[in-house]
Formats: sequence, structure tokens, C-alpha cells
Amino acid sequence: MDKETVELLIRTGPGTRMGNLMRRYWVPVLLSSEIAEPDGAPVRVKILGERLLAFRDSSGRPGLIDEFCAHRGASLFLGRNEEGGIRCSYHGWKYDVNGRCTELPSVPALACKMKLTAYPCIERGDILWAYMGPSEKQPPLPELEWCMLAPSHRYVSKRFQATGWLQAMEGGIDTTHASWVHRYELDQDPMHRRAHANKYIKADRNAVFDLEESPHGLTILGRRNGEADSHYWRVTQWIFPWFTLIPPFGPHALGGHIWVPIDDESCWAWSINFLPDRPLPEEELQAMKEGKGIHVKYVPGTFLPQANPGNDWLIDRAAQKSLRSFSGVEGFSIQDASLQESMGPIQDYAKEHLVSTDKPIAMARRMLARAARALEEGVEPPALDPVVQRVRAASVLLDRGVKAEDWARAALCTLETPVFSV
Amino acid sequence: MDKETVELLIRTGPGTRMGNLMRRYWVPVLLSSEIAEPDGAPVRVKILGERLLAFRDSSGRPGLIDEFCAHRGASLFLGRNEEGGIRCSYHGWKYDVNGRCTELPSVPALACKMKLTAYPCIERGDILWAYMGPSEKQPPLPELEWCMLAPSHRYVSKRFQATGWLQAMEGGIDTTHASWVHRYELDQDPMHRRAHANKYIKADRNAVFDLEESPHGLTILGRRNGEADSHYWRVTQWIFPWFTLIPPFGPHALGGHIWVPIDDESCWAWSINFLPDRPLPEEELQAMKEGKGIHVKYVPGTFLPQANPGNDWLIDRAAQKSLRSFSGVEGFSIQDASLQESMGPIQDYAKEHLVSTDKPIAMARRMLARAARALEEGVEPPALDPVVQRVRAASVLLDRGVKAEDWARAALCTLETPVFSV
Amino acid sequence: MDKETVELLIRTGPGTRMGNLMRRYWVPVLLSSEIAEPDGAPVRVKILGERLLAFRDSSGRPGLIDEFCAHRGASLFLGRNEEGGIRCSYHGWKYDVNGRCTELPSVPALACKMKLTAYPCIERGDILWAYMGPSEKQPPLPELEWCMLAPSHRYVSKRFQATGWLQAMEGGIDTTHASWVHRYELDQDPMHRRAHANKYIKADRNAVFDLEESPHGLTILGRRNGEADSHYWRVTQWIFPWFTLIPPFGPHALGGHIWVPIDDESCWAWSINFLPDRPLPEEELQAMKEGKGIHVKYVPGTFLPQANPGNDWLIDRAAQKSLRSFSGVEGFSIQDASLQESMGPIQDYAKEHLVSTDKPIAMARRMLARAARALEEGVEPPALDPVVQRVRAASVLLDRGVKAEDWARAALCTLETPVFSV
Repeated sequence: MDKETVELLIRTGPGTRMGNLMRRYWVPVLLSSEIAEPDGAPVRVKILGERLLAFRDSSGRPGLIDEFCAHRGASLFLGRNEEGGIRCSYHGWKYDVNGRCTELPSVPALACKMKLTAYPCIERGDILWAYMGPSEKQPPLPELEWCMLAPSHRYVSKRFQATGWLQAMEGGIDTTHASWVHRYELDQDPMHRRAHANKYIKADRNAVFDLEESPHGLTILGRRNGEADSHYWRVTQWIFPWFTLIPPFGPHALGGHIWVPIDDESCWAWSINFLPDRPLPEEELQAMKEGKGIHVKYVPGTFLPQANPGNDWLIDRAAQKSLRSFSGVEGFSIQDASLQESMGPIQDYAKEHLVSTDKPIAMARRMLARAARALEEGVEPPALDPVVQRVRAASVLLDRGVKAEDWARAALCTLETPVFSV
Repeated sequence: MDKETVELLIRTGPGTRMGNLMRRYWVPVLLSSEIAEPDGAPVRVKILGERLLAFRDSSGRPGLIDEFCAHRGASLFLGRNEEGGIRCSYHGWKYDVNGRCTELPSVPALACKMKLTAYPCIERGDILWAYMGPSEKQPPLPELEWCMLAPSHRYVSKRFQATGWLQAMEGGIDTTHASWVHRYELDQDPMHRRAHANKYIKADRNAVFDLEESPHGLTILGRRNGEADSHYWRVTQWIFPWFTLIPPFGPHALGGHIWVPIDDESCWAWSINFLPDRPLPEEELQAMKEGKGIHVKYVPGTFLPQANPGNDWLIDRAAQKSLRSFSGVEGFSIQDASLQESMGPIQDYAKEHLVSTDKPIAMARRMLARAARALEEGVEPPALDPVVQRVRAASVLLDRGVKAEDWARAALCTLETPVFSV
Repeated sequence: MDKETVELLIRTGPGTRMGNLMRRYWVPVLLSSEIAEPDGAPVRVKILGERLLAFRDSSGRPGLIDEFCAHRGASLFLGRNEEGGIRCSYHGWKYDVNGRCTELPSVPALACKMKLTAYPCIERGDILWAYMGPSEKQPPLPELEWCMLAPSHRYVSKRFQATGWLQAMEGGIDTTHASWVHRYELDQDPMHRRAHANKYIKADRNAVFDLEESPHGLTILGRRNGEADSHYWRVTQWIFPWFTLIPPFGPHALGGHIWVPIDDESCWAWSINFLPDRPLPEEELQAMKEGKGIHVKYVPGTFLPQANPGNDWLIDRAAQKSLRSFSGVEGFSIQDASLQESMGPIQDYAKEHLVSTDKPIAMARRMLARAARALEEGVEPPALDPVVQRVRAASVLLDRGVKAEDWARAALCTLETPVFSV
């Protein structure tokens, strides 16, 4: 990538080109449960380089406003969340979820002139989403499959990652690495071990890729040897601009991620498991809550994983030596995070060498850059229509003669099809 | 404030305009007790961006000199404080409190040519003060009321604050905020609870302000409703450039602060309580030492408050919810510090909106900027004459017809008047 | 020193002039024991500003390669060291000790095109050395005396120092400071206390210096009063560019240091003790391992000294007051480190005042600057010939009439002479 394209893709603050593009979509901000109670404690949150405050008002409405009081700049995190708004502790200025100053005690007549930045918020799929773009451009609500299910069918978590969003997201569309870093976990993890297809992943480390540019983003078809007469296909979906869907492992829950910039050097990595047609089994749900599968264990009171750059991701050289684990790092998400964080907060793109199996990465970069540049010219961003977001990832054995693209197009872009899984 | 004025006011290092202005006054450096013993351990201190070393020599004289040896730049903090000076551990160069090199063992003849920066020091009011300006301009010693009392009449402490000096000092002349952030402490704190006037502060949150530009700086007159026929006046004094005097609370000790830049992003917040006419009662003195009132509890071995930005000032959301405390933060000084530190080390002045109750702040800024600019033109700074520093703050009930400015001018600028307090 | 010369001497990253000069010598990288086992855990190491990875392959060969995979930039620290190379955990690319990519699983044909920076390595004197310069200029292996002895005759340790290399190295050629900061340790430390000459060092704090520019670097002759008819000479050697040899203390082991830049603000300080003609006595070896003499105690699991800038080098003011220790800091190396680290990571050279006893420092700087500038003009660096590295430090009583330079030239540049020591 040339330097200008790197800058284009990794900078997401206000006024940047990628920032402008991302602000045209609903942005996952935090777990609804982080502001569970009406009039409960507000939560500071940094998203796309902006310092914001999330809170839920007396009537249960969520708000996402500028963190700092318009008066002297004190943090409203210290404020009191009370009767329909949050009140600054310093001089009692009070704001509602729309950022309007509803009380300015010392000069009441001025209240109507004070307004904080506030972003429209909605809750869906256990997540608070905000729209941070121009108001006349607000898109329809997201309709990703897992968003629309009953809460019992879904488990959502997030973790802090000490890298920019791009190198994190790229791990989500890079199906090759499963045969390496995740190889030995497949048979051990409670959310993966019952997959018949683990043996294909382990036996054939050299997946071959087909790519489909789709209305939602990219459909990535990875082919490994299956049985004598079949190929084992893993079909990953990348949905503009930051969603990925993971091909399922046997009868286990489907999975997905969201990769949202905190700032240019850190991001939220969201992890979702779901079953379209039934509640998550209690045993699997319990395992997810314990940090198994694509979820993680936290440093108590934070969303920072226990295994993090400060402790070399708790690498276990004996486990690595004995091949209990290929990298010696525990857990799917931390395995990815460790490698991505080891690159530094922003990977040195000038030194990388992409190869043919990195086509999904190269293509996603190209599409992102193209969309960001087009937006500057007034071209509307892709995949704003929620209908195109309703796609599914799959893992499937297909006869060697079948064209997988055709199959995928027919089977995965309507959620009425059965859940395919091997 | 325009950007140039912001820069003018917040930068205080050597050669800056505000730095030049501040260097024309005696600068509070550290507690005398920090260098209690002759030939005791030296103390590193950063003031106005300069890295200095304070020590007390064999004869009891305090010194404040450049932290670093003139030879190779080793810190004299590691030196040995012995017979009339501090000796660098590296090669034995020795310096007296005037910064003169009194021994240079390997080349004795050179000693007389080596001289470290050294600032004249005096001790008054339990504080070591230094004069850091041009020697021909050294002003008379400070004569603030609390300075001149017997030690038994006074208690002095300091704490580290993680903000520039300006946003700290401005809290000291901002009487409005007492009705908000300090509201619920007034009846609980041992140094405030016996004030009859707490009820006025709590009942009338919308103080009205009068301002008097005075020879010492500003006299700030805040009026709240008192009894049916009276107003409750709180008269705060700001004395050039960094002293504030707090109106008293009933029979409790008078109070004051000093706000001294460490560098542009941190400052020392000094807190003083005193009684002009008698020793502090033992019970109140004990409470001060325990960090009550305007004093704080420390991280052991430091002047960093236990409640600090690293632990969200130990905010107690349950206390805030139940209104045991308005902000959930404990203690007058930490309540102020939390709000000011939450703004970031340097407040975003471009985003603030001052209102009429911020007149004292706007006026103080204007006077500081004016004095700094005038100094460049050769105009001497204000309030160098100690006579004008001898003012007092007061809280008083005055008949509704009385002109408070007239009363204050007559009553508060001569310390012979009785101590007014409600 | 003028600013340009300062920059010349302290910057050692790729492409800098001093960096280019240093890269013409074999560079001490880490202890051989840090990568003791074939196929053991790799070790990240930063040297001269470059982030590298050291590992030992299946056949026992050490390697020093770029830390980051050529593919996506993941750290090979997370890789698996297995059968002849280290394999990146992300996608399985594998590299041998020469940096050659020996496997690129997804596109085997590309492997031969991928190559990481790799530096030739050798092991000598318990140290792994690398050659980081142009391949056609690789010099003969180092032949310093301690390198060439049987392991039983030698003890080698290293510690992290939070300063640039220059101010660290200069402590090694500054014999004056021994009479000050180390004064009271001489009679206490198990590796120094049996030296008869301690009394000369303590009695005469004003050593007089002679200097000899030598083919290896500098021979520094420090003269103190000895007996009535003799002088006590301490002859220190500085060997281009970063080796120093310490004059022995009585019958104790000889000593030396190496000062190697990690980056421009930190360095490795290596400490070596050795006996040319016999194994180190068990008791002294034990003391060295416990951090006595010129060695240190570590924060467990690191090479960071327990006494470090974060804890004010555990200074003991009572010991300093009572003169159990001159600086109150414990241990020869930490005494030096504390003073050098107290200067800041890069000393403020603009403020220093060198005096006549600093001649060795001034001369070494001149020689380093001259060699770095000459290299730009194509002049080969000094002391590449290992024969000239075979010098020894000495402490000796010479009759007052003897010319010490003549004696040193004859006695110390051939290692066949007896070990002189007082």
C-alpha cells in the first residue's frame, strides 16, 4: 500500500476521509448493559477519536453526548444522572440525552443557547449504536442477522485491542490463519470441538480463495480438501465497513465480530455468537461467559483481556513446545490479538508482503479506500441498505464440481435458508 | 479567550511572559518542614518549569539551587549535604546555598568560576519562598495575614494537582460552585458544620456577583438571600498573582489557597487555615491533619491525594445517588480537583462558555494578561507592596440597603477590624 | 561540545554516523545463556535502535534476525522455534538463522523471495556477538583478553541502564570518581576489600592524569601518591568503541565493561570479571552471582537493577550521613548508574564544564567523533585488528622516577606479562 492509502485507511477521527465514511453507518458504541439502569452511572467512551459520555435517563432513554460541559469543560462523568438528564457537578448545568442544556441555574435564560454534541442512539442486539454523521444522511437501522434475534439466541461481548482497527479487522477476513495459530484449539474449545470439519482445517493448511465483491462487502470462499469427492468450503462475510461473520464450526453457534476504532491506535473488538433458530444451549452460554471460544477473560472491572501486551499475552512456551497450542497463547481471540498487537499499534505497512492468500485483505482495503474517496466526490457509501446486511457465513462440503460462488449467492443472502454447517 | 491570550496565561516557564510576571513575586516553593533538619536530605522541586534542589545547610540556612551539578550534570539530589553545602557524589564538587562552588577537589583554582543558579530564599508562614526574578527587582517580603501569625494560629498543607495553574486558581475565585459541588459537605465537615450561614448557601444557589478591582487584585462580593431584611455576603479576595482567600464559615478558621505552577500541566495547590486572634483549637487542627476541610489525605510518602485521576477520585456513586454528596467525591479540595482535573491538564478554552457568574474569572484573566503585557512594556507589576496584601475575606449579613463594596473597602483592608463571620 | 558533535556521538540508529561506525565492530548482543537451549524460546533484543530477535536453532546455531515477519509484520517472538528455524504463529512462514524464509506454506514458490535482515553471530566469552555492518567489511573476531579464557576464569553479567551509551561509557574511563562515590565501598566489598591500594585511593583524592592515544584507543594513567618513594598508578584502558578495562584491586579478579546502545536513551552495561591464569575462586564467583562488586541484583525475571530511577536507587540517607557510603547508594555499578541516570537519559551537554581531570573523556569524544567523520570519507575505523585489543589494565606502584607511559606500553600490550596488581 502506498503511504497515502495507508493514512486514508487508518485515520478515523473527525474530518478524516475514513472517519467521514464510518460516520455514515450506525456505530456500535457500548454494551447496553454498561448503562443498564435509568439514572445510573454514566460511562465515558471514546469512539472514532471522540470523547463521549453515554448514560440512560430517568425514562430509560440512552444518550451519547460530548463528555465535557459546555461551561468550563468539566467532565460530565462526574455529573449526577437525575430526573431527565445529567447535571454537571461543578455549577449544576444539566443536559438531556439530546445534548440540550435544560437547566443553567445561574443564568436560566441562557440554557436554550447551550447545546452539546449529541448523537442519535438506538439499542439493538444488546448493543447501543449511535449515528455520528450528518443528520440528513441517517441510514436505516442495522439488520444484521444476530441483531434481530431474541436475546436468548445470542451472546455479545467486547474487548479492548491495542491496535488500530484495520489490522484487527483484517484478522477477521483471513481464513488461512485458522490452520496455524488456532490449529490445536479446534479440538479443545467447548465452542469448536464438536465440529466434524476440524480435521479438514488441520489436514489442509493451504486453503485456496475465491472472492466475490457483494452488495454488502465481500464474500470470501476458502476451499480446503474435504472428503474424496468433495471440497470443504468456509464462506466468510465482510459487511461494510467493520462487520465480519465467521463460518460455523459444526453444530456450534454461528459467530461474528465488529471492529470499531477507539482512536487510531486502539479499537473495540466485539465478539458475537448466535443461533438463528433456537436459544444458545446453557452449557455453551456458560462457556462464553467464562471467556471461552471467541470471548475472553478480563482484568476485573475492565474490558482489557487478562492476557495482554503488558504480560506477553501470558505465552506458555511449554504448551507451544508440546503443541498443546501452536502459539502458546490461550484462546482464539487472544491468539489473534497477540499477533496483531505484536505488530505495534499501527503495523509497518511499508514492510509487509501480501501474497495470493491475502486477496481478501487486499480487496477489502481497495474497497474501503474506493468508498472513502468516492464519498468525497459525493457518491453514497455501500451497504447502507439493511437488506444487503442480511447475509450469513457458512461451512459446507460441496461436490468437487459445484461452483461455490453460485451456491453462496443463492444460499447465504437470504436468511430463510437452513443453517449450513460441517 | 483568544488563543494568544490562552498561551499567554498558561505558559510560565523561563522566558515566557506569564513566567516573567510570576518571577517578580516571592514564589511559594515547599513546606519548611520538608527540609526540616540542617544537613538533612535535599529535596527535588520543580517550580515554573525549572528543576531545582532545596536543602538546608549546616547553619540552618535554606537554599534553592539548580538541581544539576555544573560539572557533568549529575543530580545533586544524590549529593551529600554536609558542612556548609551540598557535595556532588560523583566527583565531590561542593555548592553552598548561594549556588557558589566552594570546593572543586581536582582543580581547586576553578571553583570560583563555577556557579549554579540559586534563588534567594526566605521562610514565612511555614513555607519556603524563593525569589526567581531579576535581582535588582526583588520585592519586599510577602505580608499576607496568615503569614504573619504565630505558628499555633495556622495550618498549612499542599497537594499535587494534575492541571495547569489557571484552571486550579479559577476554582478559588468561583464562589458559585459552593452551592453545587460542596453543598452537602457543609453540614458534615468538622471545619464547616458550625456555620450558621450554610443554610443560605444551600437555599440560594444563584449568587449574584459584584466585583471590585483592588490594589491587591480583586474583591469578589457574592450576594445570596439572607434573612428577611438582609443579604448574606461572601467576600472572596484574589491577591496577585496566585493567592485566594476564602470567606469564613461561621466560627471556623479562615482559609486561603495558593496556586503555583509546577509546569504548564501541573501545579501545587496550597491550603491554609488560620485564626487571626487565637491558636487553632486542637480538635480542628487534628481534623486538618487528617485531611478534613480543605486539606486532603495523601498517598503515603507523597503529596499526591489518595483520590486522584488514576482512581477516578474514588467517586462513590451511591453517595451521589443518595445526595450524601453531590458529586460522590469526598472533601472540598478533591471535589474541586476532580472537576478541574477532569477537564484535562489544560482545559480546552476554545470550547468554554463563560456566563455572568464567571465575571471574577473573566476579570482575573484580563488583569493577569494586562499585567503580563504591561511588564513587557516596562510597567511594574501590581500588588508588590505588601501593605496591599493585608486584606481579609469575610462572610457577613448586611441590611439589604447597605452597599457591600463600601463596607468591604472599609472593613477588610485593615486587619484591625474584627473577624466577620456568619 | 558543540551541538553537532553531541548529535554525532549520541545517535546510533541505522544510517547515523556513529551508528555506521559502531556497526563496523562485533556488537555484544546478549548473554549466550539467554538462548541456552536449541529450539528454546526466542528473545527480543533492541540494539543500536533495531528491534531484533535472537534464537538458537535445532542444531545449536544462534541467529539474530528482524523481529517481525516479512508477511504481515507479526512479531516472531510469538513464533515457534522448531526444526531448523522459527515459524511465525500467524500463517506459518518459517525463517532460518540467516533470515531466509524456508517455508511459506500458502505459496511455497515465494519462499525463496522472502528474506529478513539477519546478522552474522558468533559466541565468545559467554556473549553472543553480531556483526551489523556491510558484509564485505566484516572484521576478525574480537580477542579481548577475557573473551579468550576458559569459562571458569570469567564471570559476565549485564544490566539495563536508562541513559544513552556515551554518559555510561564515560564513567568507565573516569578514574577520579572512585575516590568519591566508591570511596567507602572499597574496604567492604568482597571483590575489593583485600586490595592494599585502597588506602592510596582514599588518601589521595586528586589523581593526576596522563593519557596515551594507543592503537586500541586510549591508555589512561592515573597517578596518586603511593609510598614515600613511589606513585600508585591506575592504568585504565579504553578499547574502541565501547570496551573499558578497570585497573585491578589487589589480588581480586580483573574487571571490564562494555557499553552498548539499546537506543539513544538506554544502553546495556556489561560487567566482566576474570583471572587470566586461574579459575575464579568459588567464594568470589558466588559473590558476583549475588550482585556484589561491579555486578548487581535484579528485579526478578529482568536485567533491570533492583535499585533504579523508579525508586531513587534505594538511596539510604542514614548510610550517607554516617559515611558508611558516600552517596548512600549501594554497589559500584549502581553508584555509577544512579549518577548517570540522574542526568536524564541524555545529559545536557550544553551545561557541562569539563576540567583537566576529564581529559580522558574529552579525548575519547574527540577520537570517536574523528573516527566517525573519517569513516564518512572512507577511512577505515581503528582497532579492528584483534591484536591491538589484547591489552590489560593494571594498578602498580612505580618508583617516582619511572615514566609510567613507557612502563605501560611495554607491560600491558602483551598478555604474557605477569598480572600486576596492588
